Amino acid sequence: MTTRVLTGITTSGTPHLGNYVGAVRPAIAASRATDVESFYFLADLHSLIKAQDPGRTQRSTLEIAATWLACGLDPDKVWFYRQSDIPEINELNWFLTCIAGKGILNRAHAYKAAVDKNTAEGEDADAGITAGLFMYPVLMAADILIFNAKQVPVGRDQVQHIEMARDFAQRFNHVYGREFFVLPEALIDEQVATLPGLDGRKMSKSYDNTIPLFAKREELRRLVFSILTDSRAPGEPKTTEGSALFQLYQAFASAGETAAFAQAFADGISWGDAKQQLFERIDAEIAPLRERYEALMADPAAIEATLRRGGERLREQFAKPFLAELRHAVGLRDLSAQGGEEGKQKKAKAALPVFKQYREADGRFYFKLTDDAGVLLIQSEGFDSPREAGQTIAVLKQAAAADALESPLFKLEAETDAVLEALQALREAG
Amino acid sequence: MTTRVLTGITTSGTPHLGNYVGAVRPAIAASRATDVESFYFLADLHSLIKAQDPGRTQRSTLEIAATWLACGLDPDKVWFYRQSDIPEINELNWFLTCIAGKGILNRAHAYKAAVDKNTAEGEDADAGITAGLFMYPVLMAADILIFNAKQVPVGRDQVQHIEMARDFAQRFNHVYGREFFVLPEALIDEQVATLPGLDGRKMSKSYDNTIPLFAKREELRRLVFSILTDSRAPGEPKTTEGSALFQLYQAFASAGETAAFAQAFADGISWGDAKQQLFERIDAEIAPLRERYEALMADPAAIEATLRRGGERLREQFAKPFLAELRHAVGLRDLSAQGGEEGKQKKAKAALPVFKQYREADGRFYFKLTDDAGVLLIQSEGFDSPREAGQTIAVLKQAAAADALESPLFKLEAETDAVLEALQALREAG
Repeated sequence: MTTRVLTGITTSGTPHLGNYVGAVRPAIAASRATDVESFYFLADLHSLIKAQDPGRTQRSTLEIAATWLACGLDPDKVWFYRQSDIPEINELNWFLTCIAGKGILNRAHAYKAAVDKNTAEGEDADAGITAGLFMYPVLMAADILIFNAKQVPVGRDQVQHIEMARDFAQRFNHVYGREFFVLPEALIDEQVATLPGLDGRKMSKSYDNTIPLFAKREELRRLVFSILTDSRAPGEPKTTEGSALFQLYQAFASAGETAAFAQAFADGISWGDAKQQLFERIDAEIAPLRERYEALMADPAAIEATLRRGGERLREQFAKPFLAELRHAVGLRDLSAQGGEEGKQKKAKAALPVFKQYREADGRFYFKLTDDAGVLLIQSEGFDSPREAGQTIAVLKQAAAADALESPLFKLEAETDAVLEALQALREAG
Repeated sequence: MTTRVLTGITTSGTPHLGNYVGAVRPAIAASRATDVESFYFLADLHSLIKAQDPGRTQRSTLEIAATWLACGLDPDKVWFYRQSDIPEINELNWFLTCIAGKGILNRAHAYKAAVDKNTAEGEDADAGITAGLFMYPVLMAADILIFNAKQVPVGRDQVQHIEMARDFAQRFNHVYGREFFVLPEALIDEQVATLPGLDGRKMSKSYDNTIPLFAKREELRRLVFSILTDSRAPGEPKTTEGSALFQLYQAFASAGETAAFAQAFADGISWGDAKQQLFERIDAEIAPLRERYEALMADPAAIEATLRRGGERLREQFAKPFLAELRHAVGLRDLSAQGGEEGKQKKAKAALPVFKQYREADGRFYFKLTDDAGVLLIQSEGFDSPREAGQTIAVLKQAAAADALESPLFKLEAETDAVLEALQALREAG
């Protein structure tokens, strides 16, 4: 079984080297793991809590999508989508709002920090705080639960939000009497790599000490040369300890390169030469990404299409059918199926064959068809992408004769008649 | 110009005579006014705040929809829909959440009452309070603002919610720089008719003293005969003052009938005879409604279809295009239309001809087509229903030759060529 891992990407600001080293690069490396089904989404609904400059929101969404694609996120291998393209998230958000204890939200760190700041400044506790900041953990729970993601990689400061999502999920399962939601877990990265900025403090937009990830080569060089150093002259040994320059180098270099750089420090390399080496090392890694980034930014329509396609497929395969189930659970039901009917319907539904898509440890995408009792009817071969698997399912769903079941892409695990009957039952229920 | 009036209908419990006299009957009378465009919706998302019995939620939604239809709400003359069928409400709910001041929500009466109760009982202030109760006013604002309703008939206790909706609307308009939302107004009914229940207290589910609106005739008779009276014997004069029986009669009778009934009281009518008269008077009004109600309840699929049709038409005509506008406003935009493009797009959009549907003081439904500068091109005749007007528009939109513009249903107010050109421009933009 593969594990569903979900990562939200904030859509504000322009990515800098610190974001790249601390978030983008490790997340993309993780997306290549073979035992996971990865969900990466641009959290643009969340961004509305703070960002009230629409042009910038749009620009930032484009830049960040292009960044992740340029850095190697493969939208054919992972789910890559925009939060606002999945309206089912908003519906689930309300269902969870009706379940979430207000008292729990009062204790959210981000909200409490804002209250503490107000109180310290002698303001009303909630002065200037929007309901968006307060309700953020519920929307985040909806992001996770709509796809029943099992693991959510987060920093320590976000663990509380995952605990809240667990709480809401548990409560919903309890109130509506079934395990609708998997309880998500925080996947805590204890060693989030932080990068020093130009002035030696942590690289951060708020310190205005960043190096934009896709600064042009000349601009990158200028910025690297503006990194603060001490006044040791060429020939004097330099200490690597506490050197922003050294830490930056280390973040981009292999162990061997780093050791050689440390030796050069001990040997008294001039700051100018050290900066030149750092610049070349960073540029060696970034240049091919920058080239891809520029090509992507030149064709925003292609990015828009990629995001939409991801969102549409997710809606069809997961969000819409799952929300239909949740709507039924809470009582938002077709009025024509009342009372006694309901029991029958449920049974009929439970008794349907089902197609299931999944990813195996070999990194390839599979599907199987099982009958009403869970007996395997069809087992697919591995596909390169979930899309190909989905297309094969779509064709199979129409199969009404034995020859339509002959394919190198899957094999029958039961009598042909039983398989055809199951497909017919699915069509009738559809 | 007609005024948009929006009424939310709670989907919990089984309607009783008190609901009928206090809410259903006056609202349906108001729906027949000719200078309004009325929106009536089943507030099933709101009901989730309290109702966690899904079967009952479904049953109650059906009963209440059937009640309003049986009592004369005409879904061809008003917008009649189910809140949960308009997912755009949930999306707007989040936009407004990001705008709404949390401090304002702290002061909502319903929330404060729950906190006061907790405090009085020595509990934590927010014990047992869900985020749903806290956020209710934001969802209510979304209900109103998604259709830009101008007037919202409410009782005194709901006025605060309308003020909040105004606040959120105003703030959104301010932040995003344009009058997206009309500021709604509370239409306060100072004289909400309340009916006494079987025990003389206000008829209310919580007192268990109700007469179900559609109790069968025999059951209605039994309940009316169980109304509490004093012990005056037949022949003794009775006082109308404070008599539940008299007040109930008055709620269903004309002024003349009421006067005659008061005279009978003074003349010493026996309680038994008075109850019989009351029963017959109520049944005279309710019997035809009950018959319609039973027919409606026997065909829940028809009710489901009516609600869905209402919701779908509203989404197409208002909710979807308006939400698209709002999404653009907050910055959730097509990434392929960046920066400079945006200005051009806006202009192109503003320069399109437009079909407008409206209702006139004669109660009939009209449309007109105006060009990019607002000049009238086509003026329709009156239609019996908005659907017929909509169908005529749909046909017109396809018109590509002069003879397609010859119809008794509308007349051209400009040169044929200019009209055809405008229709062509609309199709190209579509």
